[in-house]
Amino acid sequence: MAIIVQKYGGSSVADTDKVMAVARRVVDTVMEGYQVVVVVSAQGDTTDSLIQQARAISERPPKREMDMLLATGEQVSIALLAMAIDSLGQPVISLTGAQGGIMTDTQHMKARIREVDGARISAELRKGQVVIVAGFQGMTSTHDITTLGRGGSDTTAVAVAAALRADMCEIFTDVDGVYSADPRLVFDARRLNQVDYGEMLELASLGAMILQPRAVEVAAVYGVPIHVRSSFSRKPGTMIREVNAVEREISVTGVASDANCAKITLAGIPSNVNVLHNVFSALASEGVNVDMIVQAGTASPTADLTFTVTREDRQTALDTIAGLEGGQDWDVICDDDVAKVSIVGAGMMTNPGVAAKMFEALSAEEIPVFVVSTSEIKVSCLVPRSRHQDAVRVCHKKFELHAGK
Amino acid sequence: MAIIVQKYGGSSVADTDKVMAVARRVVDTVMEGYQVVVVVSAQGDTTDSLIQQARAISERPPKREMDMLLATGEQVSIALLAMAIDSLGQPVISLTGAQGGIMTDTQHMKARIREVDGARISAELRKGQVVIVAGFQGMTSTHDITTLGRGGSDTTAVAVAAALRADMCEIFTDVDGVYSADPRLVFDARRLNQVDYGEMLELASLGAMILQPRAVEVAAVYGVPIHVRSSFSRKPGTMIREVNAVEREISVTGVASDANCAKITLAGIPSNVNVLHNVFSALASEGVNVDMIVQAGTASPTADLTFTVTREDRQTALDTIAGLEGGQDWDVICDDDVAKVSIVGAGMMTNPGVAAKMFEALSAEEIPVFVVSTSEIKVSCLVPRSRHQDAVRVCHKKFELHAGK
Repeated sequence: MAIIVQKYGGSSVADTDKVMAVARRVVDTVMEGYQVVVVVSAQGDTTDSLIQQARAISERPPKREMDMLLATGEQVSIALLAMAIDSLGQPVISLTGAQGGIMTDTQHMKARIREVDGARISAELRKGQVVIVAGFQGMTSTHDITTLGRGGSDTTAVAVAAALRADMCEIFTDVDGVYSADPRLVFDARRLNQVDYGEMLELASLGAMILQPRAVEVAAVYGVPIHVRSSFSRKPGTMIREVNAVEREISVTGVASDANCAKITLAGIPSNVNVLHNVFSALASEGVNVDMIVQAGTASPTADLTFTVTREDRQTALDTIAGLEGGQDWDVICDDDVAKVSIVGAGMMTNPGVAAKMFEALSAEEIPVFVVSTSEIKVSCLVPRSRHQDAVRVCHKKFELHAGK
Repeated sequence: MAIIVQKYGGSSVADTDKVMAVARRVVDTVMEGYQVVVVVSAQGDTTDSLIQQARAISERPPKREMDMLLATGEQVSIALLAMAIDSLGQPVISLTGAQGGIMTDTQHMKARIREVDGARISAELRKGQVVIVAGFQGMTSTHDITTLGRGGSDTTAVAVAAALRADMCEIFTDVDGVYSADPRLVFDARRLNQVDYGEMLELASLGAMILQPRAVEVAAVYGVPIHVRSSFSRKPGTMIREVNAVEREISVTGVASDANCAKITLAGIPSNVNVLHNVFSALASEGVNVDMIVQAGTASPTADLTFTVTREDRQTALDTIAGLEGGQDWDVICDDDVAKVSIVGAGMMTNPGVAAKMFEALSAEEIPVFVVSTSEIKVSCLVPRSRHQDAVRVCHKKFELHAGK
């Protein structure tokens, strides 16, 4: 029997009525002939409210204990959803991340799934039960509870789907799919029918906010098709899957943007690879995710190194650099009044001049570009935060994304 | 190094200030030279509020899922208390019931601890850490989460103390010890300095409400001394331990009462032991705890069987009886306008006439007695609920309990 994994976010289970609506949708899916695994997040603002409780007690609560605290959010959701599904007469069982076999590394609050042991989930499915698994959480090899960080429920869903060789992973959300740009910024943004894994990865990591990048990575590795669709409608949303080159018609699929970034420049540092190694390994060991990295002037004895981090990680990054050998002597410039705007498209690889067209659009509107970084399927520009929306709009228009595939 | 287990109830950790106060008390105990294990309940009204959430979704939520839901209450407490203790500079780790090795049977919402595997707790203590264990919860052999029922945190604390061979189990509560009667009912009720395990067992199971009976049973079996004391003061409370007969001076220690009972009479049932077996094994398999059992008229072919259950279990008990073979033909009379009043004292065994003195006191006030049941250390009478307080007061006075040991 075909297995389907459905993931419902926190807003989909925010209150009793919504929990019942999700329960009905799950039972409908069972009626369609599927074995159903449901991955669910904490209700509404639960996680934020737990974080506030922790902050009231300690400014720097131990991360292990934060995970112990936050994991209760999903545990409440899975229990309530199980009760709702049971009340509709459908056999059901809820499992915590640990019970569901979600094994992670030990990096509390940012843990990564190492492995999903699907034995228990499979056994419960064989009994004819719907299985609900707590998203966002897992267990280390020493039985400690971990959380995957914001949006981690997506990763749980995809990892479970991969472990069970599920036919489909459906991600239910409060939007009806992936758009060519944020519809709040661009009025004629268009819902995309399908997106390639690579494109989605760039869109997700660049701030499309619909799917956690790690979830897309896992889906790509295991070939799990993801269907991003609305909790509030039965219409199809956006399919994320491997798209053949021959199917591509246009070079740019969407415009993504991210206003949650801070730019840090280390001016006049010794230009050798050892310094780069020291800086970025120190940041990594503090759990700081570095995004864009640009270095200019490698021929001279000193160089300027610029990189971006999230605004939350800004202070940790600055403290880490100050703590490095010689770090006090560097000229460190931090600017968090910036935003990143990117054009994304798997067809870009075979289509030269895409970057030039983006710069032309930004230049025509006199939007300054501080940093540029490119990959095979995206071009990103760091612009002033005040020009963030303008930048997204002009790029969307320039590439005629409202017209569609 | 001596090990002390401290248990704090839900009212002791109801808000941030109280959590910090508990943290300071724990750290003070470490400073006194103890290795400290803390068992903590859910904060304030958390459990009730979770139950309400469940009831909003389903009238009969599956018990396994109720346990999944309710266990989050303690998990929040242990995490917050760990953060508070950490903020005072004391190394600390929190453990769920499962992580703490609290292994139970599979009777959800009323599970019994089968075994405490203290390996992880001991290992964490050896690292110099305070160990916080979630009360009220455990894990089955198949890794399912269970709860022990109301007051179960006491049992967790005593069972952990027994497993670790702790020197003392301190139960912190909102009263400063065990009294000769409920001080809300009897103005001159007296705090007892020490109570025998057996006496405490009767006092607890008879509604003294301070300690769960199961906790006292476990303490008696393993010889764990329990110190019941106030969360809000540093004064000693009541010691519960083995008391030698020679130390006893008086026959009656206290008066207990319980207004949460319903009396069920099966009139004219066949008077053979097979019927008794059928009735009580059916009730047991439905998880109904039966308290007093009285049968009269065993010489005749039919008999009247009377027993008491809690008011919550009343309907389940009646349904169970109606479902028995022949059960529909019996004349079933149920009365939940009753209360049980008991005098308790280990010295009673060697002191005849105690029951007579109790009946004399009740009779002088014209308080009817419906059912009498006795054990070696207590005499219980079922009286009208409307005379409940009068009955407690007259017994307390008759045995001069205000005067003290």
